[in-house]
Amino acid sequence: MAVYTEVSDHDLRAFLDQYELGEVTSFKGIAEGVENSNYLLRTTEGSFILTLYEKRVRRADLPYFLGLMEHLAEQGISCPVPLRGRDGEALREICGRPAAVITFLDGLWPRRVLPEHCRLLGEAMARMHLAGSSFALRRENDLSMRGWRPLFESCAARADEVKPGLAEALEQELSILEKAWPERLPEGVIHADLFPDNVFFLGGRLSGIIDFYFACNDFFAYDLAICLNAWCFENEITFNVTKARLLLNAYRKVRPFSDNELEALPLLARGSALRFLLTRLYDWLHHPPGAFVEPKNPMEYWHKLRFHQEVRGPGAYGLD
Amino acid sequence: MAVYTEVSDHDLRAFLDQYELGEVTSFKGIAEGVENSNYLLRTTEGSFILTLYEKRVRRADLPYFLGLMEHLAEQGISCPVPLRGRDGEALREICGRPAAVITFLDGLWPRRVLPEHCRLLGEAMARMHLAGSSFALRRENDLSMRGWRPLFESCAARADEVKPGLAEALEQELSILEKAWPERLPEGVIHADLFPDNVFFLGGRLSGIIDFYFACNDFFAYDLAICLNAWCFENEITFNVTKARLLLNAYRKVRPFSDNELEALPLLARGSALRFLLTRLYDWLHHPPGAFVEPKNPMEYWHKLRFHQEVRGPGAYGLD
Repeated sequence: MAVYTEVSDHDLRAFLDQYELGEVTSFKGIAEGVENSNYLLRTTEGSFILTLYEKRVRRADLPYFLGLMEHLAEQGISCPVPLRGRDGEALREICGRPAAVITFLDGLWPRRVLPEHCRLLGEAMARMHLAGSSFALRRENDLSMRGWRPLFESCAARADEVKPGLAEALEQELSILEKAWPERLPEGVIHADLFPDNVFFLGGRLSGIIDFYFACNDFFAYDLAICLNAWCFENEITFNVTKARLLLNAYRKVRPFSDNELEALPLLARGSALRFLLTRLYDWLHHPPGAFVEPKNPMEYWHKLRFHQEVRGPGAYGLD
Repeated sequence: MAVYTEVSDHDLRAFLDQYELGEVTSFKGIAEGVENSNYLLRTTEGSFILTLYEKRVRRADLPYFLGLMEHLAEQGISCPVPLRGRDGEALREICGRPAAVITFLDGLWPRRVLPEHCRLLGEAMARMHLAGSSFALRRENDLSMRGWRPLFESCAARADEVKPGLAEALEQELSILEKAWPERLPEGVIHADLFPDNVFFLGGRLSGIIDFYFACNDFFAYDLAICLNAWCFENEITFNVTKARLLLNAYRKVRPFSDNELEALPLLARGSALRFLLTRLYDWLHHPPGAFVEPKNPMEYWHKLRFHQEVRGPGAYGLD
């Protein structure tokens, strides 16, 4: 929940003069999205989102993110589309921040995930993976395996403040994953942050996917592993195998996955749990007092990691 | 900026089933308003705000606030109107909090106040004061003079952390105001929190006034004094007499004020400055680390108080 940058009337007007959006009728900060400042912008032409990219988003990555949304939308994926101004550009600057206007998507993200949400998610994710295959740009996943050790090292000394013994347990897990992490699996553009608050539903359909600001090129199955963690646990602790089965089966009807991907799933799920555990741990230990954003509890992902450590094969995820 | 309470899909559906609002198409937390949780709710019937009243708002006051908005709107004042459900009630409960759906107002609040905003504000405030005279309910201003000493006492021991000598200066000011505070001035319903972010403008008009959750019965001129402080300083320090003159003259064209009110203005402006200084000081000293809301700097109102202490008559506000 965040608006980090207040946009003045003058700046807003000068910015919007570069678009054909009609007259502004409303402009309200939105309490969603942790990384950027988001405003709901209503004009005589419709509703839009104005996003100001704050410090966590690298400017050099923005053409990838904005280009991807445009590309996916062209391929029929329901996602926000960046608007181009009179000069043909989608990315410009406001209040010293890179900024873009994107289309507004109808729908609600599920505060409580139901099995049917998981089925719809699996299908949409597979379609998104296929649609991304013709996208020309490439971006490494800086939060995949090679990014974890530096993150861990910046937290290790204080990790035991969160849970005694955590530093050692994470060191062990990291070593295992570094050795065993797969080198070759089918890959392409993944969302890499497909949490429930980034997926909208409306009238029994999945109406859109938002927030592509972690998207990157990585194993498709790693996106699945992220979603097993983000969508298939009850009360953040108990794995719901029915949800996992629905998600994975709906996915493979659209993009069948190989035996290699299936076998790698438990390890990828451990990696994905470690990734979110580490970034949350980092935020937990480094957030300034009085910060706008309440950091998320890293321990949620500790429980999830522990679950996947005990998994002996993809059967645990409801697949035969 | 705030969403304190997450509303689940189930709770939202059950709540909205009590209204005739069509199907929900979007539901987003708004990063505005410090006291309550606000959601922008879009349905097939239009746009609305769902407000959950959090701990600072007393449940017993809600019929006053909601009734007032309804009353003012009936009198032609552009403000949010609470919607009544199928049972005729505007106030009900969601997630254990009192809650209401109100209409959505178009317009933007001025991030930078221009003189013309002050003129439009003065006129609208006077119309609002007149329109409130036929409102049947009554609510004391618990943040007027009699409320300041308890507030001061809960901060006094630590006030000097903000500025050395502040506690003593506030004690002196409080004693002066307690002795000199007027007993009889024209009174009625005042907004009591008419800051720029509570007033919307659109196309050169004032399009609406929002956030009536400090409204109460008090001196009309106290509302003016609050606005002199909130709208007529540049960079929070330099008083802009042109803005004040426009505000006051536009006001008195609609509701002429008495000599008594005019003479009391400097004292009321000191009182209003002290009131916001004390509540901000309280929040500054008592906000928990990691709180969602960045507390506002109390020293802004110290500078404003110092200005009014030097004022010898209403001429300083641009009036003859």
